[in-house]
Amino acid sequence: MGSLGPYQRKHRVAVIGSGNWGTAIAKIVAENTASNPAIFEKDVQMWVFEEKVEIAKDSRHYNASSPLCQGPQNLTDIINTVHENVKYLPGITLPENLHANPSVVDAVKDSTILVFNLPHQFIIKTCEQIKGKIVPYARGISCIKGVDVNEEGISLFSETIGKILGIYCGALSGANIASEVAQEKWSESSIAYDPPHLDSKAPSPNRSPSASSENLVHFEHKDVSGQLSQVKLQALPSEFPPVDHAVLKSLFHRPYFHIRVVNDVAGVSLGGALKNVVAVAAGWVVGMGWGDNAKAAIMRVGLLEMVKFGEKFFGATIETRTFTEESAGVADLITSCSGGRNFRCAKLSVERKQSIEEVEETELNGQKLQGTLTAIEVNNFLKKQGMEDEFPLLTAVYRVLTGAMSVEDIPSFIER
Amino acid sequence: MGSLGPYQRKHRVAVIGSGNWGTAIAKIVAENTASNPAIFEKDVQMWVFEEKVEIAKDSRHYNASSPLCQGPQNLTDIINTVHENVKYLPGITLPENLHANPSVVDAVKDSTILVFNLPHQFIIKTCEQIKGKIVPYARGISCIKGVDVNEEGISLFSETIGKILGIYCGALSGANIASEVAQEKWSESSIAYDPPHLDSKAPSPNRSPSASSENLVHFEHKDVSGQLSQVKLQALPSEFPPVDHAVLKSLFHRPYFHIRVVNDVAGVSLGGALKNVVAVAAGWVVGMGWGDNAKAAIMRVGLLEMVKFGEKFFGATIETRTFTEESAGVADLITSCSGGRNFRCAKLSVERKQSIEEVEETELNGQKLQGTLTAIEVNNFLKKQGMEDEFPLLTAVYRVLTGAMSVEDIPSFIER
Repeated sequence: MGSLGPYQRKHRVAVIGSGNWGTAIAKIVAENTASNPAIFEKDVQMWVFEEKVEIAKDSRHYNASSPLCQGPQNLTDIINTVHENVKYLPGITLPENLHANPSVVDAVKDSTILVFNLPHQFIIKTCEQIKGKIVPYARGISCIKGVDVNEEGISLFSETIGKILGIYCGALSGANIASEVAQEKWSESSIAYDPPHLDSKAPSPNRSPSASSENLVHFEHKDVSGQLSQVKLQALPSEFPPVDHAVLKSLFHRPYFHIRVVNDVAGVSLGGALKNVVAVAAGWVVGMGWGDNAKAAIMRVGLLEMVKFGEKFFGATIETRTFTEESAGVADLITSCSGGRNFRCAKLSVERKQSIEEVEETELNGQKLQGTLTAIEVNNFLKKQGMEDEFPLLTAVYRVLTGAMSVEDIPSFIER
Repeated sequence: MGSLGPYQRKHRVAVIGSGNWGTAIAKIVAENTASNPAIFEKDVQMWVFEEKVEIAKDSRHYNASSPLCQGPQNLTDIINTVHENVKYLPGITLPENLHANPSVVDAVKDSTILVFNLPHQFIIKTCEQIKGKIVPYARGISCIKGVDVNEEGISLFSETIGKILGIYCGALSGANIASEVAQEKWSESSIAYDPPHLDSKAPSPNRSPSASSENLVHFEHKDVSGQLSQVKLQALPSEFPPVDHAVLKSLFHRPYFHIRVVNDVAGVSLGGALKNVVAVAAGWVVGMGWGDNAKAAIMRVGLLEMVKFGEKFFGATIETRTFTEESAGVADLITSCSGGRNFRCAKLSVERKQSIEEVEETELNGQKLQGTLTAIEVNNFLKKQGMEDEFPLLTAVYRVLTGAMSVEDIPSFIER
C-alpha cells in the first residue's frame, strides 16, 4: 500500500467541534495519530466553542487549591489541563496529544485533514469563518449525522462543507452511540470517501473529471435537483501520503471502533437521516403493545424505503448494499430502533396517549426529535415530487404526526 | 388473476401439526378458507397428536357437570368442543370450521393443500405414514423453521417433504412469535413457492423441466451437494384453481398477518436457521454489557454471512434480497435478536458466567437451544468445505461454544 510508504511530510489533523460525539471522535483520532507516526503528526487540534465551566466539588478533578477550581474557567483550559471534556464527555480521559483550541481559525491552520463534528445549524457559519484560511489541498470528513432535506432537494452536509471550503469532504456514520464509543465498548462505523481521481487509486465511475492540470482537478457533480456543478479541487502535494481509504482507516479504526471504508457518500449520509423516521414508527408500534414481530416488520419496510429513496433520488451514485451491508445502514437502523431517543419518545407518546410535542416538552425540554423533523421535511419533498404513495411508511409517519391518521392504521396503510 | 375465476372444484386444506405455531397457522388458514369460498372448502382438518388433557378448574371452559371435565379427555375432543387448543395455545378461540383429527391419514385424505407444521424430528416419520394416501396432485407448504444441515450438505425441510410424498412443497417463514400471531398482533411473513411450470404462470429460471405429459411434469433439481434429482410431479387437474402465489396469499394473508410470496425457497428457509446462530452471538455481547452498538454490529455481520452462505452453497437458486428485504430474512433476524430464547439464554450465560449447557439446564429443562445446535452443524459442514475462515461470525460462535475462544475475542476475530 503506497500510502504507508515513506513520505516527506505528514498529515496534520484538526477536529472541528467538541460535543459528546465530537470529543469521542477526537479521542479516537488522537489515539491513531499517536500510533501511526509515519502518516500523521502526533498533535491533534480540537476546536472548542469557548464557554465558562465550573468543576463540580464532587468531580475527581476538584482540588480546592488549584487555580482551575476557583470559580468558572475556560472549557479549553480545563480540557488541556485535566484531559477531560468535563462538560460534554465527563468521565472519559482524553489523550494528551489532543489540544483544545478556542479559535477555529487557529485550530485548522496547517491541517491537511479536517474532521467536522458540529450541530448542523452551525455548519455554514463555521465553514464561512475558516474559508480561505485552510490549507487549499486539505481533505475533510464530516461526522455530522443525516442530510439536509427541503422541498427542492436533498443535500449532503459533506457536500455543503466541500462547496464552501473548496475541498473534497467525505462522511462517517454508523451505529454509534457516542457515550458507548467513548467508553471503548466495541462498535463499528462506515466512512464514505470518493474523491476525484487525483487522490484516489481507483477512480469512481460516478465522477467525470473533465480536465486536470498539475495540481487542479475539475470534476462535475450533479446534485439531486439535477443541478450540475463544476468543482475545482487542488491536488495534494506528492510529499504527503495520499488521502485514500487506507489512510482514513488508519485515522479512525481502533480495536474497539471498527471501520469499513466505502465510496458511497450519499448512501452513508442518507441512512443516518431516514433511520430516525423509521425509529419513530417502531416506537409507536411497540408503544401499542404489538410486540417484536410488529417492530421487526416496521424496520423491514423502513429499510426497503431507505433503499428505494436512495435509488430514486440519488440514482447511480448510490449503492443498495450500503443500506443492507454497512454499519451506516442496517446497523444504525437497528441501534436507533433499540433505544434511541426517537424510538423512546414515540413509544412514550402512545403509552401516555400524548402527542409527540407533549413528550418532547416533558422528556426533551421542548427540543424537537430529529425523526419528526426529518419526517416533515421528507414529506414536503416527496409531495413536491408527487411520490408520497411510493413511500407508504415515510408518509404514514408524517400523517400520524399531523393527525391525518392513527397508529392503528399503519399496517393497512403500508400493505401494498 | 385466473386463480380467482370460477372453477368447478375447490381446494381442501389440511394442517399437519398442532403445537402453538401449528395451531396459530391453522387458525389463520381456517379464517381464510371461510372468507374465500370461491377457492377453498370451508372446513379445515388439523392433525393433532392425540393425548389426554385435563381441563383445569380455573379454566374458562371448566364446568363441573360437563363430561369434558370428568378427568383427562382426548385433546381432539376438547379442541372440537370448546374450540381452543387448551394445551398448546391456551386463551385463543379457534374458528369453528377448524376440526381436530387424531388420524393423520384421515386428516390429509382428499386435501389438495397440505400445510406442515411439525417439530422437525417428526417430519420423516409423519410423511412416511401418509405417503401414498394423499391426493397425488396435492401441493405442500412447510411452516417448519430452519433447514437440515449435516457434514455432507444442507437440505430443506420442504424438499424432504416433497421428495417423500412426491409432491411440490414450498415454505413459510418470517418474524413470527406464535403467541403474538395467535393474539392477532400485526406481523408479516414470507412464503416461498416456486413449483415447476405446470402450476405457475411464470416459470422460474432455476428449474429445468425436461419433459411433460398431460398430467406429469419432470424437473431437475440440484441440491447443495451437487446431487441431481429428477422429480416427477402430477399436474393439478384443471377443475381446480391453480395453486399460485395469489391463491397462497388468499390462504395465509390476514389483516394482522401480512404475506409476501416470493420464489426463493432456499433463502426463506435458510434465514430461519442461521438467524438463531447470530442471536446467540448477539446475546453474548449484550450480556457483556457492550450495548446496542455492539449488538447491531453482530447483527450486521450476521446478515452478511447469511447472504454469503446462501450465495456460496445455493448459488443461482437463492436471491440476496430474500435476506435483506423479506420478513424471513432481516425481520426474523431482528425479532430473534430482540427477545428470542437463543438471545436470552446466551445473554444469561455471560451474565451468570455459566456455560450454555448450564443455562439450558436451568432455563429450558435441559432442552437444547436451536442456535447452538445449528452452530455446531453448520461448523461441521463449513469445516468439511474448508470454509470456516470465510464465515468468521458463524465460526466464532462455534469456537466460543467449544471453549476454543472467549466472547471478548469475537470483535477481533470477525475483523477482516
